[in-house]
Amino acid sequence: MTSNDQGAYVEDEFNRDMHYIPTRITADGRDGYPVEPDRYRLVVARACPWANRAIIVRRLLGLEPVLSMGICGPTHDARSWTFDLDPDGVDPVLGIPRLQDAYFARYADYPRGITVPAIVEVDSGQVVTNDYPQLTLDLSTEWSEHHRDGAPDLYPEALRDEMDEVMELVFHDVNNGVYKCGFSGSQRAYERNYEKLFDRLDWLSERLEVQRYLMGDTITEADVRLFTTLARFDAVYHGHFKCNRSKLSEMPVLWAYTRDLFQTPGFGDTIDFDHIKRHYYEVHRDINPTGVVPAGPDLANWLEPHGRDDLGGRPFGDGTPPGPVAPGEEVPDDHTPRG
Amino acid sequence: MTSNDQGAYVEDEFNRDMHYIPTRITADGRDGYPVEPDRYRLVVARACPWANRAIIVRRLLGLEPVLSMGICGPTHDARSWTFDLDPDGVDPVLGIPRLQDAYFARYADYPRGITVPAIVEVDSGQVVTNDYPQLTLDLSTEWSEHHRDGAPDLYPEALRDEMDEVMELVFHDVNNGVYKCGFSGSQRAYERNYEKLFDRLDWLSERLEVQRYLMGDTITEADVRLFTTLARFDAVYHGHFKCNRSKLSEMPVLWAYTRDLFQTPGFGDTIDFDHIKRHYYEVHRDINPTGVVPAGPDLANWLEPHGRDDLGGRPFGDGTPPGPVAPGEEVPDDHTPRG
Repeated sequence: MTSNDQGAYVEDEFNRDMHYIPTRITADGRDGYPVEPDRYRLVVARACPWANRAIIVRRLLGLEPVLSMGICGPTHDARSWTFDLDPDGVDPVLGIPRLQDAYFARYADYPRGITVPAIVEVDSGQVVTNDYPQLTLDLSTEWSEHHRDGAPDLYPEALRDEMDEVMELVFHDVNNGVYKCGFSGSQRAYERNYEKLFDRLDWLSERLEVQRYLMGDTITEADVRLFTTLARFDAVYHGHFKCNRSKLSEMPVLWAYTRDLFQTPGFGDTIDFDHIKRHYYEVHRDINPTGVVPAGPDLANWLEPHGRDDLGGRPFGDGTPPGPVAPGEEVPDDHTPRG
Repeated sequence: MTSNDQGAYVEDEFNRDMHYIPTRITADGRDGYPVEPDRYRLVVARACPWANRAIIVRRLLGLEPVLSMGICGPTHDARSWTFDLDPDGVDPVLGIPRLQDAYFARYADYPRGITVPAIVEVDSGQVVTNDYPQLTLDLSTEWSEHHRDGAPDLYPEALRDEMDEVMELVFHDVNNGVYKCGFSGSQRAYERNYEKLFDRLDWLSERLEVQRYLMGDTITEADVRLFTTLARFDAVYHGHFKCNRSKLSEMPVLWAYTRDLFQTPGFGDTIDFDHIKRHYYEVHRDINPTGVVPAGPDLANWLEPHGRDDLGGRPFGDGTPPGPVAPGEEVPDDHTPRG
């Protein structure tokens, strides 16, 4: 996802098309797609915040050995993400050059946006689901048999009601809120969404001033979802989407919180600032006609000490951090600051 | 000035048209236009950094009683700045709705951009000059008979060689440098100019770390010229022109230097952030097609203590600060932070 052709305008307001392919991959296989090692391939783009969630969750849970990952390039044409990073521009497992091929294999006339993340069944070549909010939760709850030893519980039963509520607010005002600012069809719609965005960020700052993570002492999916938006804030949303009351780096609590996660295994090592910037600035010609990609901001400060350890916390609860990034899935050194 | 129709592209590089009407208003009247009270009207737009120089210099020198000022609105159409802020959209002294009328009164086929600042002879209705770099220096050197008591020497003879050199570097890399970033026709041209801009800002930071003003202890025209660009940096150039290595507010020396000047009579009281933002974001549809004007950045911090007094200095040299803004020339309270 992330393209503004993933929505329409209703009264000058960007309205994200939230109709995804609702098929679920479950332990009991009730939709016809049971959890099974090597049966599926997760297709992502590092640029996309919604796909970035799945990259992080897969890695935190250690699902790499059972669920492979195909990575699309940072830009795409009007219709589809492409495998332009792969040799000959073809995904080595699926054997297709464009993600839409997997959508069309399932639905010949698929009429909606070709979005990432998507999970494709390897043998049939058909996309199973692109329902990103359900997809990551299912990695936590349906794939548990295949989690690594020490995998964290990212969607703890006892917290789900409150988590769902927090994630819903964060989705509307922040995750999707930045898009509503950037793609506003009028000054009024923009200002309305700008206000909601920064009100919500202030609310989040207050919440995170006294606890290390959104749900308390331990990382959950709620943090994953907030992180992928905050990681793009200064690089893209601040300028490109006019979310410019202040930079993330000028909001001390949120900035420390984001750096804390960035420096945690499984988060920063999935972030490719080069892909992120190129995606938004090159693809959205409707708001950046020249396609010029800003050279800034200076990213060196992402590795500065965050001091959040003072709040205590057990980042992975009873679990452990994930190990090194799987071979072949590393973000190139020159794309992201390194310690 | 400030529109990107004030230049052409040479090898993807924005090339400012520097051919202005070179007539000078001088004490000896050698070009046919002698300095004379009430004979001329300075036409400006608060949005424009080049016009802003003239507003500041006129006020520092106390020329308000002898040289009146007409103020164009923040936006303009393809061809001309307009007097849309005035009753019935007509300048009350010149009696014209559009600045181009004064240009055409002098040259019926005037082929270049209709730029501010411009000085118009009231009786003939003809523009005398729009040569902004010469214009402000002439206010200092040719109009001295009419300076207020205590007017500072903004172009001191002993410093001119060094000043001219500094102003030239600042012009190419900073004043015009931000435009070259924003209107770059290619990624390469943009990155070249971005590098020059921030190298020069680093150089200026070093210079200003040990002295309060660009030429030493006292404000000169060199400060005026740097100030009008820095005042627009976070509000416009950072996002709109992609000058985003960092915000001004993240460059401690330059940020304190700019706040120091902003809080000095004659500087901040000429700045209209609302006009500034509306001008760039509404007029440059080629780089901001939606015309949406960002609501940020938060401006409250412009009035924070700057601490530059620790460097000593005599802001106005042997002179004194200017008095209150002339009646009718105040920036509306709601456009600019107030103490």
